[in-house]
Amino acid sequence: MRAAILSIGTELTRGELTNTNASWLATRLTELGFEVTRIDCCDDDIPRIGESLSTLVRDHGVIVSTGGLGPTTDDLTTEAFAKHAGVPLVRDEKQLEELEEKFRRFGRAMAENNKKQADFPKGSSVLPNPYGTAPGFEIALGKARAFVMPGVPREMKPMFDDQVVPRIQALSPRQSHQHRFVVLGKPESEVGLMLDGVEAAHPGVTIGYRAHFPEIEVKVLAKGSDEDDAKQRAEKASAVVRKILAPWIFGEGPGSVIDFAAQIFREKKLTLALAESCTGGLLSQLLTEQPASDYFIGAAVTYANSAKTTLLRVPNGLIEEHGAVSAPVAKAMAEGARHVFGSDLAVAITGIAGPTGGSAEKPVGLVHIALATAAGTTPHELQFRGDRFRIQRMAAYTALKIATTYARASR
Amino acid sequence: MRAAILSIGTELTRGELTNTNASWLATRLTELGFEVTRIDCCDDDIPRIGESLSTLVRDHGVIVSTGGLGPTTDDLTTEAFAKHAGVPLVRDEKQLEELEEKFRRFGRAMAENNKKQADFPKGSSVLPNPYGTAPGFEIALGKARAFVMPGVPREMKPMFDDQVVPRIQALSPRQSHQHRFVVLGKPESEVGLMLDGVEAAHPGVTIGYRAHFPEIEVKVLAKGSDEDDAKQRAEKASAVVRKILAPWIFGEGPGSVIDFAAQIFREKKLTLALAESCTGGLLSQLLTEQPASDYFIGAAVTYANSAKTTLLRVPNGLIEEHGAVSAPVAKAMAEGARHVFGSDLAVAITGIAGPTGGSAEKPVGLVHIALATAAGTTPHELQFRGDRFRIQRMAAYTALKIATTYARASR
Repeated sequence: MRAAILSIGTELTRGELTNTNASWLATRLTELGFEVTRIDCCDDDIPRIGESLSTLVRDHGVIVSTGGLGPTTDDLTTEAFAKHAGVPLVRDEKQLEELEEKFRRFGRAMAENNKKQADFPKGSSVLPNPYGTAPGFEIALGKARAFVMPGVPREMKPMFDDQVVPRIQALSPRQSHQHRFVVLGKPESEVGLMLDGVEAAHPGVTIGYRAHFPEIEVKVLAKGSDEDDAKQRAEKASAVVRKILAPWIFGEGPGSVIDFAAQIFREKKLTLALAESCTGGLLSQLLTEQPASDYFIGAAVTYANSAKTTLLRVPNGLIEEHGAVSAPVAKAMAEGARHVFGSDLAVAITGIAGPTGGSAEKPVGLVHIALATAAGTTPHELQFRGDRFRIQRMAAYTALKIATTYARASR
Repeated sequence: MRAAILSIGTELTRGELTNTNASWLATRLTELGFEVTRIDCCDDDIPRIGESLSTLVRDHGVIVSTGGLGPTTDDLTTEAFAKHAGVPLVRDEKQLEELEEKFRRFGRAMAENNKKQADFPKGSSVLPNPYGTAPGFEIALGKARAFVMPGVPREMKPMFDDQVVPRIQALSPRQSHQHRFVVLGKPESEVGLMLDGVEAAHPGVTIGYRAHFPEIEVKVLAKGSDEDDAKQRAEKASAVVRKILAPWIFGEGPGSVIDFAAQIFREKKLTLALAESCTGGLLSQLLTEQPASDYFIGAAVTYANSAKTTLLRVPNGLIEEHGAVSAPVAKAMAEGARHVFGSDLAVAITGIAGPTGGSAEKPVGLVHIALATAAGTTPHELQFRGDRFRIQRMAAYTALKIATTYARASR
């Protein structure tokens, strides 16, 4: 069944907000087996909302709308839907009471204009909002079922999952199955080229890509006559993808590169410390977005050369002889970090992130990484391309890959 | 004049990509003085592209489209526009030659299907693409002028700025002026409440907000009869905004909190070092997204207590007596960092970022920050709300604000 998304709000048409709600909803609807063919976005304007609805109801069974349910005068979504459906607004006394109760609980006075959040088009059914003041509603528009939700993501997402999904699931029986790979070390375009032909060889299978640079998410989505059939198709195609991408697959299933890496260090009971120069703490920051104290000891961000000497005991002479961006200094940084933090593993990163600071001999993008372990220290010389953002991220992720490859292989 | 954006691509309707092009274009068009009232998004489907165009041409003078200009069979945008305009496709021999030349330069063989990127609707005018293979084009659709561009942001953005802007500027003479504030330390909703009434008191002025948590961008956009009038209106309203938000304004004009802070340290010729615990290197990472070696020495990310002792020489007894999250430990960390890095200023952050690790006495969100300078060390105790992401960011930005406030006041 076809589904459409309607995002309402002048903050969207003015570009003040990026429409992340639409991509989130599109992903969820696709996963549920719907074919999303349109995402409309218009400003808070009753005629334009109506114009969109007139188009969308023509060939979509489900319409999901977000935004414009607030208490202010520029929130016109409810009125626009009622007008399109040709029904009046009616005040829902139960919702009004709940609204008043919410304000009491938040310790705020309820303004007169908030009352309009208890008005709904006649014949619609309310979708409660446990996380905010604006309830949503479901309304029939011709043959289409429309679900009208607030635009605040933390209110909208649970409303969709908890209340809309159960109402629409039956419309598109789950005949899709998805398998997810997390790939590191190849750009999205090359991954796409490598998998060229997989879709054609596997009917019902589509392959989706999403890049969170430098991480690539590869999703094998299969549709089938029933859930088992879909699962079988997804697994068959996934086996081919797994074979082609083997050296670059960092993990399978839910999670990020960081999540997979953390899991390996935990399983192997290995502690990690970092010495970061050109990445400026990026890898440390990525590792600590989630609690990490059971494997992560700390990092020395030795941005200035003096800090390499005082914190990591890198001999001054070594920097003078080889330069701060060199294999000997990377090794000394890694060994220094392992010593000073007392960790099982220590990775050091030193390089030229740019945009300035490069030379013919040591160009922007040159990065030395070293891994120090009980078994010794191994240096890696890499040359990355792109801007500062890309060089820093490639360096951080490559260093993590080097450490996890070692950890994976250790007993 | 009204403008609309049409984003084309199944990767968008499936939710595999967030439509950042649309928000970028909406911002630019709004800045140019256009009123963007619709952003449509549909999959790679000729009838649905046509359906959108039929709606959009009705009341938009400018239509900007992105996506679907690639060489593959699912790239159908050019065909859809030709069909809607009722004209055939014609091959542009000059563009074909340039395309072949591009492939030679990239050292790649040109596939047969790439030739279609030299096909354009009859009567359209080509928009060259210096950054990729797919040129764009301008075509008249009734009274509307449509600009069709590739979807790759790094190709689309320069095409818009260099080629579309000069063609549309005259349609909406610049009668708008914008002033920008960067605000720190108040949530967006409170900033909005504080500025409630400014729009009403200043005709032609609208205030836009964008949050890059915890940074809030406040844009005062004024329209006027001419540029001077618009500028005057913007400045008058901005003076009011400046007065209301004074304690929280971090900077004015282009730039981020980090940019403004870096500028202050540079102007005052002060060097900075960090000791980060619960923020895990976040502040260090934020400071080094841009080159920072002229003021930033480094950071000790002392995530484990042992690291606080070995790297920053925080006495073990101090941690045992007061706990790692305490004013005395924050002070010792800051002083240790200032000593070991040899910097003018050192800021230390230690806290409980959660989700676990809190207690009745020291709840999640408790953060101690200390600033060490030649004049001594000052501790700050803060209690932040929200999840780990928010607590870490609030802590990092607050620490930076404490350091820059000191730097600003110093001679």
